[in-house]
Amino acid sequence: MKQHQGKDSRPPLVADWQHLMRTFIRPEDEASRAVLTKYMEQILFGLHDFLASHVGVTRERTLKELAEAYSDASISPAPEKKLDEIISELIEEVAPHAVNVSSPYFVGHMTSAIPFFMVHLRTIVAALNQNVVKLETSKILSVIEKQVLAKIHRMVFQREAGFYARHVQHPETMLGAFTENGTLANFTALWAARNRLFAPGPGFAGIEVEGVHAAYRHKGVRRCVVLASRLGHYSLRKAAGLLGIGNEQLVVVEMDSGWRVDLDKLAETVRDLTRPGSETAVLAIVGIAGTTETGTVDPLEPMAEICAEHGIHFHVDAAWGGPTLLSGAFRGLLSGIEKADSVAIDGHKQFYMPMTSGMVFFRDPTALDAVAYHARYINRPGSVDLGIRSISGSREATSLMLDCALRIMGAEGYALLIDHGIETAKAFAAAIEKRKDFELITAPELNILTYRLCSRRLQQRLESCGQEERRAINERLNRINRDLQRRQREAGKSFVSRTTLSGPATNNEQIVVLRTVIMNPMTTVAVLEEILDEQERIFAAMNAAAAPENAP
Amino acid sequence: MKQHQGKDSRPPLVADWQHLMRTFIRPEDEASRAVLTKYMEQILFGLHDFLASHVGVTRERTLKELAEAYSDASISPAPEKKLDEIISELIEEVAPHAVNVSSPYFVGHMTSAIPFFMVHLRTIVAALNQNVVKLETSKILSVIEKQVLAKIHRMVFQREAGFYARHVQHPETMLGAFTENGTLANFTALWAARNRLFAPGPGFAGIEVEGVHAAYRHKGVRRCVVLASRLGHYSLRKAAGLLGIGNEQLVVVEMDSGWRVDLDKLAETVRDLTRPGSETAVLAIVGIAGTTETGTVDPLEPMAEICAEHGIHFHVDAAWGGPTLLSGAFRGLLSGIEKADSVAIDGHKQFYMPMTSGMVFFRDPTALDAVAYHARYINRPGSVDLGIRSISGSREATSLMLDCALRIMGAEGYALLIDHGIETAKAFAAAIEKRKDFELITAPELNILTYRLCSRRLQQRLESCGQEERRAINERLNRINRDLQRRQREAGKSFVSRTTLSGPATNNEQIVVLRTVIMNPMTTVAVLEEILDEQERIFAAMNAAAAPENAP
Repeated sequence: MKQHQGKDSRPPLVADWQHLMRTFIRPEDEASRAVLTKYMEQILFGLHDFLASHVGVTRERTLKELAEAYSDASISPAPEKKLDEIISELIEEVAPHAVNVSSPYFVGHMTSAIPFFMVHLRTIVAALNQNVVKLETSKILSVIEKQVLAKIHRMVFQREAGFYARHVQHPETMLGAFTENGTLANFTALWAARNRLFAPGPGFAGIEVEGVHAAYRHKGVRRCVVLASRLGHYSLRKAAGLLGIGNEQLVVVEMDSGWRVDLDKLAETVRDLTRPGSETAVLAIVGIAGTTETGTVDPLEPMAEICAEHGIHFHVDAAWGGPTLLSGAFRGLLSGIEKADSVAIDGHKQFYMPMTSGMVFFRDPTALDAVAYHARYINRPGSVDLGIRSISGSREATSLMLDCALRIMGAEGYALLIDHGIETAKAFAAAIEKRKDFELITAPELNILTYRLCSRRLQQRLESCGQEERRAINERLNRINRDLQRRQREAGKSFVSRTTLSGPATNNEQIVVLRTVIMNPMTTVAVLEEILDEQERIFAAMNAAAAPENAP
Repeated sequence: MKQHQGKDSRPPLVADWQHLMRTFIRPEDEASRAVLTKYMEQILFGLHDFLASHVGVTRERTLKELAEAYSDASISPAPEKKLDEIISELIEEVAPHAVNVSSPYFVGHMTSAIPFFMVHLRTIVAALNQNVVKLETSKILSVIEKQVLAKIHRMVFQREAGFYARHVQHPETMLGAFTENGTLANFTALWAARNRLFAPGPGFAGIEVEGVHAAYRHKGVRRCVVLASRLGHYSLRKAAGLLGIGNEQLVVVEMDSGWRVDLDKLAETVRDLTRPGSETAVLAIVGIAGTTETGTVDPLEPMAEICAEHGIHFHVDAAWGGPTLLSGAFRGLLSGIEKADSVAIDGHKQFYMPMTSGMVFFRDPTALDAVAYHARYINRPGSVDLGIRSISGSREATSLMLDCALRIMGAEGYALLIDHGIETAKAFAAAIEKRKDFELITAPELNILTYRLCSRRLQQRLESCGQEERRAINERLNRINRDLQRRQREAGKSFVSRTTLSGPATNNEQIVVLRTVIMNPMTTVAVLEEILDEQERIFAAMNAAAAPENAP
């Protein structure tokens, strides 16, 4: 695999100024241009050929072997390889050990195939290499970013035309912000909410200036909480830790049997927390529009009402589900999202952008003022410097990709993908229920479902048996499903993920489930049936191995 | 400019499933492949041709005009354009109004030309589309990321070979983390430092769990501070705000006349803050290895000693200067950095990576345990999931670009760039001092310098006159330099930035300065002389306009 590098027959590479300069001045002559284009062709199709010929998830090489091969911690003094050698190496030695997330059989995570034009758009963003932290290093890219923020804000909040005419390019208001991912989008939302809850007032410069300690003293509280269901993303807990309110202040509200926030419990919890003498401030209630584990959507409409009644910031984590709003058939599932104070949406999830892009939007276009920072040398008040109201500093123009993608796909193009995912998930749920060895655990509301290996016989037994037996059966099933998922992953043909669910629907028992996320348009019911077939075969082999006396 | 789109002669685009699927299945036949390659060629050279033919910074179109052109806030239901039309539009209508950061005349910010191979590497990362938050969506890319983190850690900390052999691929230790940028790298360092300072102990679960309020009570302090010079990056203040200690707790330590932290003042401040009864915890002292505004490097070695003496976390913000360690000639400027507890370095600055990539490194490979979070469905304790100890969630494999770049360039290749920047800056400083109308304000230590328009006559006057006159002269000079910088930027041929400096060297007066950052290898002294020539011409025109009675 190494002979193409001609390591032995070639004089060693030396860093020299002339050669270095040539890497900065792109070639003018046809021949040199053809070489650079050929490299791009290699990248586009070399990687593609690998991905096409390896339908499975990854070629086998243990993590231990890889770790040994990549253990040299020295930076080579002289250049080691030229670009073309690096590209060959990446295609031949790296790509085969990466994860083929674009395989239709890779249905375990929220990472999937992306339209090929996204790679072109990514290349454009890199070639322009603008920094949207400030207008002076981005100019039109900042303008385009403001426009695409307005487009998505409108998709979510549907405010009147005049509102957008006023704010789309307003230099001092922000309809939202691009962040690296959903985690930072959630951080930004809760950061702004924290600062608005403990806003400056007479004798108090605000929590951002004086800190949590002074803010509590000023407001006469001893803690500050965030409420979400147990299926809330772990970034919410992390946000509470990061922001200094303490991650134990993420108050988990029980779910109903449909894996959504239990509204009665939520109302009761809010009443408890806000009663006189509780010394507790409620920073935000978080509704989830597509939980990571089950894809279920919290009852956003009534949650918004509870928030409005108590004057609590309502944040919706729609990192996954947000683009569902582009589907005429399914946008109703997110009804109430337009009443949120802030909404997080990921670009690299159901907008099918390359890794990574998160976004956060605020109903109130001045909300981000609560987290504004100025630097002497760049951001001047009143200038269109997007870095002023952003958790990040330097930032690339991923917004350009989303803007172009929206125009290439149209809302209707995205709707086709969304509808395919949800409809395929529903058909897959039906297929699971037809098989005698599987049990559907969470039916798909969006395009995520969970199930487990559990024979019909055991399902019936679980319904009628006592608590102790049920627990014992579930523990055995948990072991089997954990083992099954691992074996299928290691076989390398398909990948479903697993997680552990617990809620009223499982009598609050910990249930290990197999989880599928259906966003790849090439993932059909036939593909999913093959995945079930493989699981049945693996299970049969597990049984045969476990009971050798039964073997033929 | 729009006729190439053939908008009128063509049937409207419609979103349909067949066409959509074709964007996911990359073409197998030669003809279709050739089309995709042609698009890449357009991107690589179409953008390049624009950048080559527009040496200046940007083509003239006012922000107001741009804002009006990009004010539609609706997502089009149907597709608007195909990829080739989008590419043409980006080349013809967008690129001319972007900022030509790759121009040798663009010397105002820390954004510059990048080697063309970086664009190829970016394209590879996008085509692989791995998510390094977890091993299951990245496999070998997580392994490569750990390796490159070790390479940079070794460049900074120079620990013994056995240390790297142990930790380079250790599944449960982390030598550092990739972040979106230097801001998030600084956040991560101070977040970890905060959590280690208020670590869990008997009766206390730690600040991350219980929050700032409980942590102060537990430790018996009423505040917690971060110390840095006035030239500290604004992300430090932002970090203090975000982390809940309050941004007023960023204590500014005075500088010496060389724009570095005054060590006596620092020692005195630390003694003050740590004396019994002060009820103050010192979270960190921050040394700057290349301030954003002047490029000066704090005295890291003695700062490390002060920190060690008092058991204070020593963070070095080397976002700019870090890669100077690859230069044999200049690495001594950062001497003492190896004694830091944490160090931030940006990839998109002097590693010449495309936007954006930050990194943070810790001497102690368990330091990031203080910010670890697990999620049920992905990160399992003991697995090599890089997302466990990271401020971010989903994250792309920018680390692969740095790894490839280090191997294509070699340390010596980077050293050529670093040396060119510093040597050119020194030569530029000499050129400024030769001109009678300019005054060098901060001499280059790294590759950044500041100066202003101020005639030799006025320089002499300023040295001898009284305080009141000095202030009046400086105020006039500030206006002139502000105006000069704006006029030059608007002329669009070159770009230097401006900032306002204040320190012992300026008698603590606010001085508006012109700031140049010399990192583009095509920025020669001749280019810089041209920029000075232009400034002289602009100033002459300003004078002529201001004093029409003197005009011929």
